[in-house]
Parts: sequence; C-alpha cells; structure tokens
Amino acid sequence: MDQQSDRNTSSVFDLAARVAVSNGGNNDPLLPPARYLGCPQRPSNMPYHKYASFAMQVPFDYPERTWPNKTIQRAPRWCSVDLRDGNQALVNPMDSERKLRMWNLLVDMGYKEIEVGFPSASQTDYDFIRMLIERELIPQDVTIAVLTQAREHLIRRTYECLQGAKRAVVHFYNSVSVLQREVVFRKDKAAITKLATDAAHLCKELEADAHGTEIFYEYSPESFTGTEPDYAVEVCNAVIDVIQPTVEHPMIINLPATVEMTTPNVFADQVEYVSTHLKNRDAVVLSLHPHNDEGMAVAAAELGILAGADRIEGCLLGNGERTGNVDLVTLGLNLLTQGIDPQVDLSNVPNIRKTVEYCNQIRIAERHPYAGNFVFTAFSGSHQDAIKKGLEARQAAAEHDNAQLDNYVWLVPYLPIDPKDVGSNYEAIIRVNSQSGKGGMAYLLKANHNLDLPKRLQVEFDKIVQHYADSTKKEVKDEDIWRLFKDEYLPIESGGQTDASAFVADHEDASLCQWGRLKLLKVSVSSGEDGSDTVLKATVLDRGLSADAQPVERKINGIGNGPIAAFLNALHALDITVSVMDYAEHAMGTGTDAMAASYVECEIGEESAAQVIWGVGIDSSITTSSLKAIISAINRTMR
Amino acid sequence: MDQQSDRNTSSVFDLAARVAVSNGGNNDPLLPPARYLGCPQRPSNMPYHKYASFAMQVPFDYPERTWPNKTIQRAPRWCSVDLRDGNQALVNPMDSERKLRMWNLLVDMGYKEIEVGFPSASQTDYDFIRMLIERELIPQDVTIAVLTQAREHLIRRTYECLQGAKRAVVHFYNSVSVLQREVVFRKDKAAITKLATDAAHLCKELEADAHGTEIFYEYSPESFTGTEPDYAVEVCNAVIDVIQPTVEHPMIINLPATVEMTTPNVFADQVEYVSTHLKNRDAVVLSLHPHNDEGMAVAAAELGILAGADRIEGCLLGNGERTGNVDLVTLGLNLLTQGIDPQVDLSNVPNIRKTVEYCNQIRIAERHPYAGNFVFTAFSGSHQDAIKKGLEARQAAAEHDNAQLDNYVWLVPYLPIDPKDVGSNYEAIIRVNSQSGKGGMAYLLKANHNLDLPKRLQVEFDKIVQHYADSTKKEVKDEDIWRLFKDEYLPIESGGQTDASAFVADHEDASLCQWGRLKLLKVSVSSGEDGSDTVLKATVLDRGLSADAQPVERKINGIGNGPIAAFLNALHALDITVSVMDYAEHAMGTGTDAMAASYVECEIGEESAAQVIWGVGIDSSITTSSLKAIISAINRTMR
Repeated sequence: MDQQSDRNTSSVFDLAARVAVSNGGNNDPLLPPARYLGCPQRPSNMPYHKYASFAMQVPFDYPERTWPNKTIQRAPRWCSVDLRDGNQALVNPMDSERKLRMWNLLVDMGYKEIEVGFPSASQTDYDFIRMLIERELIPQDVTIAVLTQAREHLIRRTYECLQGAKRAVVHFYNSVSVLQREVVFRKDKAAITKLATDAAHLCKELEADAHGTEIFYEYSPESFTGTEPDYAVEVCNAVIDVIQPTVEHPMIINLPATVEMTTPNVFADQVEYVSTHLKNRDAVVLSLHPHNDEGMAVAAAELGILAGADRIEGCLLGNGERTGNVDLVTLGLNLLTQGIDPQVDLSNVPNIRKTVEYCNQIRIAERHPYAGNFVFTAFSGSHQDAIKKGLEARQAAAEHDNAQLDNYVWLVPYLPIDPKDVGSNYEAIIRVNSQSGKGGMAYLLKANHNLDLPKRLQVEFDKIVQHYADSTKKEVKDEDIWRLFKDEYLPIESGGQTDASAFVADHEDASLCQWGRLKLLKVSVSSGEDGSDTVLKATVLDRGLSADAQPVERKINGIGNGPIAAFLNALHALDITVSVMDYAEHAMGTGTDAMAASYVECEIGEESAAQVIWGVGIDSSITTSSLKAIISAINRTMR
Repeated sequence: MDQQSDRNTSSVFDLAARVAVSNGGNNDPLLPPARYLGCPQRPSNMPYHKYASFAMQVPFDYPERTWPNKTIQRAPRWCSVDLRDGNQALVNPMDSERKLRMWNLLVDMGYKEIEVGFPSASQTDYDFIRMLIERELIPQDVTIAVLTQAREHLIRRTYECLQGAKRAVVHFYNSVSVLQREVVFRKDKAAITKLATDAAHLCKELEADAHGTEIFYEYSPESFTGTEPDYAVEVCNAVIDVIQPTVEHPMIINLPATVEMTTPNVFADQVEYVSTHLKNRDAVVLSLHPHNDEGMAVAAAELGILAGADRIEGCLLGNGERTGNVDLVTLGLNLLTQGIDPQVDLSNVPNIRKTVEYCNQIRIAERHPYAGNFVFTAFSGSHQDAIKKGLEARQAAAEHDNAQLDNYVWLVPYLPIDPKDVGSNYEAIIRVNSQSGKGGMAYLLKANHNLDLPKRLQVEFDKIVQHYADSTKKEVKDEDIWRLFKDEYLPIESGGQTDASAFVADHEDASLCQWGRLKLLKVSVSSGEDGSDTVLKATVLDRGLSADAQPVERKINGIGNGPIAAFLNALHALDITVSVMDYAEHAMGTGTDAMAASYVECEIGEESAAQVIWGVGIDSSITTSSLKAIISAINRTMR
C-alpha cells in the first residue's frame, strides 16, 4: 500500500520542531512582565511550544513597503466565489434552484465576475454551468469563472464544460507552500512550478479548440500565505511566460490567503512584494482571495489593496471554507463610508441577507457588520443621547443649507453609516434596557409618538423607566415605554369624550390609565377686548382625596392674563395651589388637525410641602392640552 | 424648550459637506478604470457622495511609524468588559445568576482585570458589584474595574459602590471627538479637557476617603478614533498631570475605537503617535478598546499592540455594542498559533462558547474563528486529502523523533490550530458533500472504520460516493459512506456464520448487503513440507448467474504457491477466471483478536472482456479475509 511510504520525516517538521522549542523564549516568565495594575497575568497551560511563529515558518522581511502611506481610492475589481468556494463549504451544497437564486442576486447586485463552480470535480457544478450557458442566462457584461486543479484530466473536463460560453475565465491552481510541497506533493520547487506551467501549456492548447469562447486565465499559487514570496513570484512569472497576457487581454494572478497565518500588515508586505516583482505587471490583474482564520480577512483585503491588489475574491456575508472567505458586503460598505462608490448595489442588505441565508442554509451572526440584527442598535444611554443629538444637528444643518436630508452628509455619532442607505430604518437604532439612559427613551417617544419631552421631564420620566428596567431585567420595548408614559402622565378614564382621550384610547391598556383625582370634562375660555383678562369656565370630575370616593362634577371659574393663569385661579375652589415653573408645547405632526402636546412643570402645594412635578396633556386644542397637563401634574402628586 | 437651540448648523457639517462633495473625484467615471477582464464594473447608485473619508474628517499623517517592522512578542494585558460593555449591548441584560456565571468563567480562564459594570448608571450593576465585594467573591489577584462618565454625581456614586473593595480601577471617560465636541457637548477643546481634569481631581479627592481600597485609574478619551491625535494626547496628558501615576502605581490610558472608522494601519499610526507622545509613559499602561464596525477589530488590536499598546479590552467571542467589541478568544488563540502563551486558559472553547451564549442569550456564528461549528471542517476534497497527509506526516515525524504526539509541533495544511488544543476533536474536521474528493471519504473510513483504502480503490469507491452525493445533493455523512461501502464491497447475506459477518452485521442496514453470486462458507488450507504448494479446500454458496436461482453449496479445491493462488485455481471449477493485480492487507486495530482487512485488485474474465475491479474482505483470519476480498470482486463484476 502506498500509504506506508508516507511515514517519513520531512524537513519542514525538522525545522519547525527546532523552532517551536526555541520560540518559547518569548514566554519566559523571567522576562520583565508587561506593565500591570495590582497583579500580573500568569503563564497558562496552553501548549504554545507546539506552534511555530509565522516568521519562523516563512521568514520574510520587507522594510521597503510603501503601502502604509496610501489610502484606498476606488473600488477594486470584485469576483464573487459564492457559487464555488462558498458552495463547497456548505453542509448541504446548493441545489440548482438555490444556485440560480444566488446567481440572480449576484448579477442583480452588479458583480461582473462570478466564479460558478469546479465543474471537473462535481457533476452538479458541471450541470449548473451547462444550464447557464445553454439557457443563455449569462448577461453580456458578466464573465463566468471556473476553477480547476492544475491536472490534465480536470483541465480537459473544464474546457468541455465551457463549450458555447461567450467568455470565461479558466482558473487553475496548485499548492505551492513549503508545507504542501513537502507533505502533500513531495516535490521540489522546480517540479511544483512544472505542474503550473504544464497546466498553462495545456490550457493554451485547449484554447485553440475553444472556438467562439473568449478565454481569460487566472492562476492561483494556492497556500500563498505559507509560501516564500520569492518562490511565489517565480512560479507566477513562469505561468505568465506561458500565458503571455497583454494589456488588452490581461490575466489574473490570484494570491490566496488559503489559511490566514499572519497579521494583515505582513500579508500586505507579501502582496506588495509580489506586485512589484511580477513580470509584465501591466498585463496582470493582481487578485486576492483572503480567508478569515484569524478573524482579519477584511483587514487583509483592504491592506492588500493598498499594497497593489486590483481585485478581490470573496463571498457575500463571508461564507466559505472553515471561517469563511472575506465578506464582499462589508468590503463594499466600508468603501461607501469612506465616500467611495462600491460599484455594486448594496442598498438592500436585508434582502441580500435573506437570500444568502436561504441559499447557504446558514444564519449570519447578530453582530455581523452592516447586516446583523443588532448593528444599528444602541442600548447605551450616552450613545442614544449622542445619536439623537447627531440626527437633530444633521437635520438642522441640512435645513440650513436647503439640502435634501437623504443626500446630506452623514455624520452621526456611533452610526458609521446611514441605516437607510442599506435598506434598514431608524426604528431599530434605539433600544432601551436597564443599561440605557434617558436618551433612548426620549428618542423613542419622539420617533414613534411625536412627543418631544423637555429635558427635565426626560430626567423625571427616566427614573420611572429605569425602575421598571431594573425590576424586569429585560429590554424595555417601545410599547412598554409608551404604556409607562401613559400610565404616569395620561391617566385618562375610559369613556372619555374628547379627541385627546380617543387618541390615547387607541393605544390604551385597560389595566392602566384608570387613576387620578381630576378629569377635565368641559372648558370654555373667553377674552374680552384687547388686553383684558381671560375668563375661564371649566367642568371637572373630582374624585376628591379618597380613592374610594364617588366622583363629583364640579364647575369652577377663574380669571387671569391667559387661560393657564385663569385655570390656576379656578383651582383654588378645589383647594389646590399650583404655580407653573416651566412650560412647553408642540404640534404632534403637521396640518390643522394635528394634536398638541403640552408639558407643564408645576409647583404644587403650599410652600413648605410643595412638590415640583411635570404634567403632560394632549388635545386638539392647545388650550385644553395645557390645562390637561396641569391636571396631569396635580393627579401625580396624589398618586 | 431647549431642543430648539439644537437646530443650528455646526462647523463639522460645514466642513464635511464641502468635503463629501469634493471627494466624489475618486469615483469619477472618466478616471481610467481598474484593470479588468471582459467588462468593467459600473458606477452604482449608492450615495457615496454623502460620506466623508476618514482622512477628510480627521486629517492625520504619520510617516514616522515603526510598527510595521515589529512582531508581537508576548500577550498583552487583558481586560474583559463582558460584564459592562457586553452586558450593556444585550437585548436582555444578564440577571445576577448570568452575571455570576460570566464572572466565574472569566476568573477561571485567568483574566486578572474584569470591568464589572457602570454602577452609577444602573442599579443592577451597582447591586452586583456590592455582592462581589460583600460576599468576597473577588480573588486576591483579580482587579475589578468600574466605568463612569466624567460627571460629578456619577463619580461620587461610583466610589460609594466600591466601599470595602480591596482593589479597583475607576475608569472615567468623556467624549473628545470633533463630532461629539461640536454636536453633543458644544464645547471647545479647553472645556472638554476641563471635563476630564475636573473628573480626575474629584477622583483624587474621593480616593482620600476610600480607606482600605487600593484605587487605580483608567481614563478613556472616548471616540478616540474620531479625534485629532494631538488633541487626544493633550487631554490624556492633562489627566496624567492630575493623577500623577508612577511606575510602581501606574494608570491606564485607554484608547477606544468607539466606532471603527479606518483601516487598522491608520489606527496603529494613531496609537503609535499617542504612545510616543504621552507624558510619563513608563507609568502609563496604554490600552485599546476596539469595536468592529468595519469588521477589522481583531486586526486593529493586533496592529495596535505592534504600535505600542500594552493592554486590550474586549469581550469573549466579540459581544458588545452594535457589531461588538474585539473578541478576546480570537486574539488569545491567534497568539497561541504564533507560539506565544496567551496567558489565559482557552483550552475549552466549547465550554466558553456555551457559557457566553447562555449569558448573552445570543448565538455565535457557525464560522466564528476558533469557536464556530464549521471552523475545523473541511468539505473540499483537496483540503481533506492534504489534511489527511498532513496528519500522517506529523504522526510519522513525531514517531521518528520519539516525541509525544500531543505536544509535537503542529503543521497541518488548512488547520492553523490543533482542534484538540481548544477542546475540539478531529471528528468534525472531515465532512463529505458533493464538492468533496476522495480524501474526505478515505479519511472517514480510516478514522471511524479502521479501513485504510489503497489509492486506486479510493478512486474507484469515490465515484460511487460522488454519484450518491450528486443525486442527493446533501452532506454525505459517515454512516452514508459506510452503508455505501458495505453495500458495494461487503454484501454479506444475513445469517452469516463467520466472525466477519458478525462484525459487518453490527453496522448492517437490512435493506442492503443482500446481493452477490458467491458466499464463502468454509475454507481449509494446508501446506506440506517447506516450500511445497498450498492445498485449499473451500465450501461456497453459489447463486449462479441468474438472480432468481436457488443457491447451491459447492465444494471446490485448488493448489498453488499460497492460499490466494490456490483459491484462484479452485475457482476454475465455477468457470471463473481471476488474476490478482494488486493486493494490500492490514490489521484493523491492535492485539491478537484484531480483524484483518484485505483489498484485492482483480482482473476478472477472459482477456478481451476482462474487468479490473477491487474487492474487500474482512475476517479474523488474514487468509479468509483475502479470499473474501476476491469473492467481493467477483460478485461486483456481476452486479
């Protein structure tokens, strides 16, 4: 059996075993410990001696780097590998219906290069690609790519699959890393290079028979990250020599971070080295294919672009082998937040997510950048407060500039992107839990109930919300806040007759809103000639001071320099002393039939026992709403 | 109402509006397009003009950077903020039972600094911290930290909460970014700095009364990423002047990437600038608090360490506001793969994950680095093949070096970490779907069924697996492979009497394994004196060539230079012509009672119509197993 011959020691283990033992020095407990407060960290029992640092595996130093002085200026060329790398990594690979749905999404989003499969390895892929070609489902401006190992029978089968296509990229690869050369292929560099150039020669030969199909080439030195950069350049240049790309008909050299092995700055160094050492560079589209083993694929792609890459291969929302490919959605939207056109349509992220989750049968994380359920959500009170102020300041600035708000510059604390630009809305932004401050509550009352609470009222009501949140230990939803608010400030009895009570009744929870001494039943206000006092006549329902007492209708009258002053005077008849400390009122919406909301801060009671407390009133009449607000405050003192 | 005064235009919008319009130049369709194949990408309708690049928001250039020439040498100081930032970002914040469970996990893992809450903002946090202190749940070598805004009443409340603690970090912060200064606080730099220094003064004042508690300080210039680095240094130095840390009693300066706004190299530039411009640097623990808005928090933390940071704040598995905090598990395991002791115990990732998911009531992603369900899974055939070879080469190298395998250097293609080191096992590594090659199937048969198939047999059987996978379009599970294998190569009839049939019957699916012309019932082999031929007598059950025929017991005899040759001769009596092309056999396990597996490649039939086909036999006797393998091949030719 040929497996027996595998049991040899290969030099990569010799090297690495020595290195792994020696690199323990970095963890020597005798080294001065890192700066610390109180107590140092302790050595763990994790088997770090077993791992060789990247620098020891593939020594490489590139101080000539220029990429850290650059910034990204434009979108790279995108290639989606959802239907190949992504599909290959699924527990249940896509059936043809799912494949077509993914294909349509990618085409609709504007991806112009789509790797559609590995036809020589999978009959399903082969059949799908034949369907795309035969049913003419490939738009004129979209180029399909197909993957094949650099092996003769697979390459032949690949060309068979492409018959009749108008244009295609044949993407061939072989593994070139130190480890794979020694452990998997047991070939030296020359033999590994020959695998690649033999494949390139065969491709050129088969291309001659591929009439009517415009063939482009892509070569991947697979496991690039574990390869000496100079050898990677050597094998790529050997392939370039065979393919002979031109500026008009370029080829792709694709550097896969098959396994992410380093911080992304080292990857960028590798990319810049290759980019500056490739032959015929103007005829090469330099591409990257980052994986996410260390959680840094997005950074690797972006620093790789700084380092000279022209093109990125990835998957929507980061599907792909193991930890996934780099996420094309995050990359595109990162560009957008930097004022750069991503050149794909990412305006409906919820739809992208829905389709991707359907096709892959994998759910994405709640905190996935741009697409997760919680990523536009702020629970922290100070964040909520700042977001509210930021949205207001932006609106004011846009009005000041007579600019359309939707297109106005987006600068809002804690929200790097306008949720509307990716198909979300503000509803989800502000959520309130026991950790939140008043900002969130105030935002929700404003956004969903048109109530713009004065700041001191926010402070007052926030205590009620916080008490509720601390006792329930759950998220306080908008309906909870609204219920608490109504119960505290708008305790209208059932069967109320005014428009305001109808408004409140819409939202009413019958178990609440049933308390309070006074209810305003009727009011008439008359002013005499210019400058004369206002005369107010009101009918109120009075339960008196005892909770059990039968309510009595009372008619009260007052006079003053306006309805509020007149009402305060009228209340003396009920032995209630109120003075108004602060007052605010606003329309709840636009138009003549908009309701008015009034907020009145009252000092109630005699001086030594006086309470300062807010009341809220809502009515179609601005007069009635302010009187109701005073009644609201009075009722609250007696609760 | 004071909201009205918010409606002014602030200068940050003036600046940004101008900038955002001008930066559209980067997307000018008249610029030469990126290199492309076939068809260019097209401008999208995404509103990129609305966003200002980071360089335009906070101009900063730092060509003096030295960090790209460095590598990480040791673990940073860790601080878990799961119980504060993480908890704050939950739909349902942790109740006290969940908090305690998280606390115990963090302490058990070896975290020495744990931020336990924001006691002045949340009664729940306050009560939990009191419980930790009063019930003496804080180990001697663990330091708690508590967060507070830089506001007097909150700071006072914070100190109240700490009464009786042995040691604590008081972490105060205020927002210092351009945007927050102008939009949220409406204060100039001097006034913002004064907020911070006033807080620092108050802290020092309250510390005088905090008898018995060793107080350390942490100051965060919040929204650091949106702050001019020179101003960030200015405000930090002003705080350092007040706190007056010493080398023996340092303070923490913590730079929050409150919102991730840049590629991580720019963040590293910012960090290096601050690190090299702070006063009294030896008495400062420079800390980072990265968020993940652009999906690059891990990279930001790692490059930040290169740039001079001593300490990282984050959450287990990346919980936290919006897209989360940087993931402490990924950071720690990234260090491990580089041969560096993470100084925390990450050996049981499944348990960490279970506890985190329970406490946060949020599931992590299937592809979450190191912790997701699929991250050690290879579906791709070439990956599976390389993993199999890598594991074998490692084992051989360890044996060669007389080293213990568990501690032997880990170098395996596609697996950056030994799954065993993080509490996983190899079972999940290899999974087979329609995209997989023979490597995965061969690995599963070896790992789970002790069958080490010769390569050409792998190729043969792989066609059967691929056909099955293509037709079901589902993952092919280990039991599917085993059923297919038995059905194809081990079609033992029910009621078989040998040990081998008992072995197979264990796994048997009654609907299969019921076909085939021949069954070996009895065999005896005798050799005469040294060198003489072997005489074989066998009894076989023969169904003949027709599927409907009644089976007949046949006794057959043969002679040859060994049992196989003798058996081949005996088969002539049944008009069957077989020659053996290749042969392999191995024990299925260790010990004298181990079964033997035999693989025989046979040419069956007369020359022109001959078929080359494999057979497999399993028996406690190596002789019987090889004869069964020949029968297996014969039966297959007639299927």
